[in-house]
Amino acid sequence: MRKIALSVLLASSLGAVAQQPGTADSVFIRKVANNILVDRTMYSNLHYLTKQIGGRLAGSPQMVMAEKWGEKAMQAAGADKVELQECMVPHWVRGGKDKAIVSFSDKGKRLSKNIEVLALGNSLGSGAKGVKAPVIEVHSFDELEQQKNNIKGKIVFYNVPFEETFVETFQAYGKNVKYRGQGASRAAKYGAVAVLIRSMSHSVDNHPHTGAMGYDTAYPKIPAAAVGLRDVEWLDSLYQKQQGVEAQLFTYGKMLPDTIGHSVIGELTGSDFPNQVITVGGHLDSWDVNEGANDDGTGVVQTIEVLRAFKAMGFKPKHTIRFVLFANEENGSRGGKKYAETGKAKGEQHIFALESDEGGFTPRGFGFTVPDKSWEKIQAWKPLFTPYYGDQFTRGGGGTDIEPLAAAMGTPMAGLRPDSQRYFDIHHSANDVLENVNIREVKLGAINMAALLYLVDQYGL
Amino acid sequence: MRKIALSVLLASSLGAVAQQPGTADSVFIRKVANNILVDRTMYSNLHYLTKQIGGRLAGSPQMVMAEKWGEKAMQAAGADKVELQECMVPHWVRGGKDKAIVSFSDKGKRLSKNIEVLALGNSLGSGAKGVKAPVIEVHSFDELEQQKNNIKGKIVFYNVPFEETFVETFQAYGKNVKYRGQGASRAAKYGAVAVLIRSMSHSVDNHPHTGAMGYDTAYPKIPAAAVGLRDVEWLDSLYQKQQGVEAQLFTYGKMLPDTIGHSVIGELTGSDFPNQVITVGGHLDSWDVNEGANDDGTGVVQTIEVLRAFKAMGFKPKHTIRFVLFANEENGSRGGKKYAETGKAKGEQHIFALESDEGGFTPRGFGFTVPDKSWEKIQAWKPLFTPYYGDQFTRGGGGTDIEPLAAAMGTPMAGLRPDSQRYFDIHHSANDVLENVNIREVKLGAINMAALLYLVDQYGL
Repeated sequence: MRKIALSVLLASSLGAVAQQPGTADSVFIRKVANNILVDRTMYSNLHYLTKQIGGRLAGSPQMVMAEKWGEKAMQAAGADKVELQECMVPHWVRGGKDKAIVSFSDKGKRLSKNIEVLALGNSLGSGAKGVKAPVIEVHSFDELEQQKNNIKGKIVFYNVPFEETFVETFQAYGKNVKYRGQGASRAAKYGAVAVLIRSMSHSVDNHPHTGAMGYDTAYPKIPAAAVGLRDVEWLDSLYQKQQGVEAQLFTYGKMLPDTIGHSVIGELTGSDFPNQVITVGGHLDSWDVNEGANDDGTGVVQTIEVLRAFKAMGFKPKHTIRFVLFANEENGSRGGKKYAETGKAKGEQHIFALESDEGGFTPRGFGFTVPDKSWEKIQAWKPLFTPYYGDQFTRGGGGTDIEPLAAAMGTPMAGLRPDSQRYFDIHHSANDVLENVNIREVKLGAINMAALLYLVDQYGL
Repeated sequence: MRKIALSVLLASSLGAVAQQPGTADSVFIRKVANNILVDRTMYSNLHYLTKQIGGRLAGSPQMVMAEKWGEKAMQAAGADKVELQECMVPHWVRGGKDKAIVSFSDKGKRLSKNIEVLALGNSLGSGAKGVKAPVIEVHSFDELEQQKNNIKGKIVFYNVPFEETFVETFQAYGKNVKYRGQGASRAAKYGAVAVLIRSMSHSVDNHPHTGAMGYDTAYPKIPAAAVGLRDVEWLDSLYQKQQGVEAQLFTYGKMLPDTIGHSVIGELTGSDFPNQVITVGGHLDSWDVNEGANDDGTGVVQTIEVLRAFKAMGFKPKHTIRFVLFANEENGSRGGKKYAETGKAKGEQHIFALESDEGGFTPRGFGFTVPDKSWEKIQAWKPLFTPYYGDQFTRGGGGTDIEPLAAAMGTPMAGLRPDSQRYFDIHHSANDVLENVNIREVKLGAINMAALLYLVDQYGL
């Protein structure tokens, strides 16, 4: 029985009639899965990227190393061709060791304590003199507005906890990240001299979590730093009971002129429709304070792994598949923008794009931003993902690097959705190291990605 | 609309007519979930159990501390009554620092290297003189049988890797654990003087993984130790290319006379059916070489947490719910056996039992060992678990501590099924510490456990 079904469906997968996946597809996906589960290349790749290269912010020497490594890794995985796509990237440097000292009066004495801070990406530093001022704590932008007459000359301390009752942690991040992004300028508007932001995390350790911020050019560009969560709780408690709480913040961030960066693009050229492009990717850059293991080393090595496994199995896609390691997701998204612009200028047809940039955790499924008709079609594919835990399909989703494609040409897109519980323990902090990756979880993610790419290639959306 | 449905269904949940869960149940479960997600007691409990008490093997002073702590934690959580149920437990002690030295000839010189080992639980030590002998490597019991004439006077090195292509890691463990359990006596039968076992893990670090073994009394009780995976690979590679590979193993394990242990039993007495008992539990003991965080500290604190949340919400179960921290799961299961024997002797009706002993990882669902009729019934409950990731219901499952209940009185049972990818990186090794727990994942497990207990209490099986 199985043999008959296989031969019929293999014939159909060679370009004839089938519109619905069947046994041959589940057999193919099982083979991809076994290949990925047994092979050790992906772990070696992630080990090299995290331990030999490490943190690789746009403009850094490490990012240049990562581009060269990525090119070689794509070639080793068997790409038909590999290209480094140039783009201009912002060039922010941390410039020194961030530091903050909190001082306060206790029984007539003046005491002080260092707290753990990290300057936010793109923020401008206080320099070696630091900025010293009384602290005012707020728990929302509304409270900032209510306090607007008390802000001048102060350091605003945004203490907005993650909402714990959201089961999916990206909801908590999505709700709070505006304090990181806009907090500095919103406070500068009322005369604040610096801001301290509660880290975007619900971890129980004290590592601060950096991340991109932006300035509203209408207001002074004041220093901005994230605070580790234990120190947030300490500072909050101090602020509630003591008078005269001051902070002195030392940050050294500088925005240098834009510099050259590259996305790394490997390709398997389509046998039937070489001009119709399916894109899969993660981003090659990371923050500077860690190894960029889960953000987004895992997305990078999954992307290369799918290429390696397809090639190792002799799978020749009908459509061109591009495996892209995007430049500069963290503080500018210039790689993704350039990729979409270039594709549009060349008149390429981009039929689907997939990104993995939510950490290398055990998969739960995919989020899809696709037309209704495609959404209905892919419902039938779910059982093929069930054995690998990737069958939770939700609407909405994609990735920062592929959104420009969707915006430019309406390309349907999806994002791999791993389990989200651990992500914000790690995200943008010193915790994002190889030791916090379980390689089997990353492999399961790659298997689901390979399955989805295969099905889109064979059956379209 | 919601208001009407709520009042109707609340009435029904107060004991009237409903046979199927509805909106009121999803509202109740959401409230339990929010309570558990926000509350910090469970983390404090786990912190105390792991950091203040630590490893707590049956018979150890730490296990006595854990029993006392468990009793207080149950009282603090609001149990109607708390009992320490006595049982006799095996009393194995490691007795010293395990050590192994591998020696070999290289270019005429004799070289040696220490490898990471841990004596298996229940194994008898070599003592301070150690046992030194040539190594023979085998990859299966079949190979051992083929080599039976070459075993005498040697140290058998069982190198049987976990099967990587199993997606669910317990399948790999289930296939290989016989080498840990029976490897010593199977080799002693042919005259081996000791065994080294590849750790039951697919981790990439070098921590050995201990665990229970047993002797066949027909053969000499030889020393037995697990080897860290990097050293397994090193030893295997050495064995392939060098002659004269010897090992000297030093272990100090002793089996002392049985001693007294206790399971801790908290109870919420049923309002309608006090003599019908629902059991939920984890095991309080752990191996000695770690903090017993995921095995099974998380199951312990989840059990207490469900009690705390039910009590905090004023939920009064119809049936008696027993929250049990079982003694001695790791090397004897005497707590679970005693609990079942006592229940049977007292003529208690045990209508359901649930255990959490597969690690405190993000939940995927439950494994059920229940009659067909119950299985059909609970299918309808799945959507209530979907928001908390616990809706993958599979047949088969339970837990070592509740299996005696099922055996004694046919009690239907279930086991919480967390994601299994990380478990065998940690299991029975020095890695099983609080730092490898994400408390939100443990909370999601507790939420699913609470939901299942609530539904069984309200609707029966």
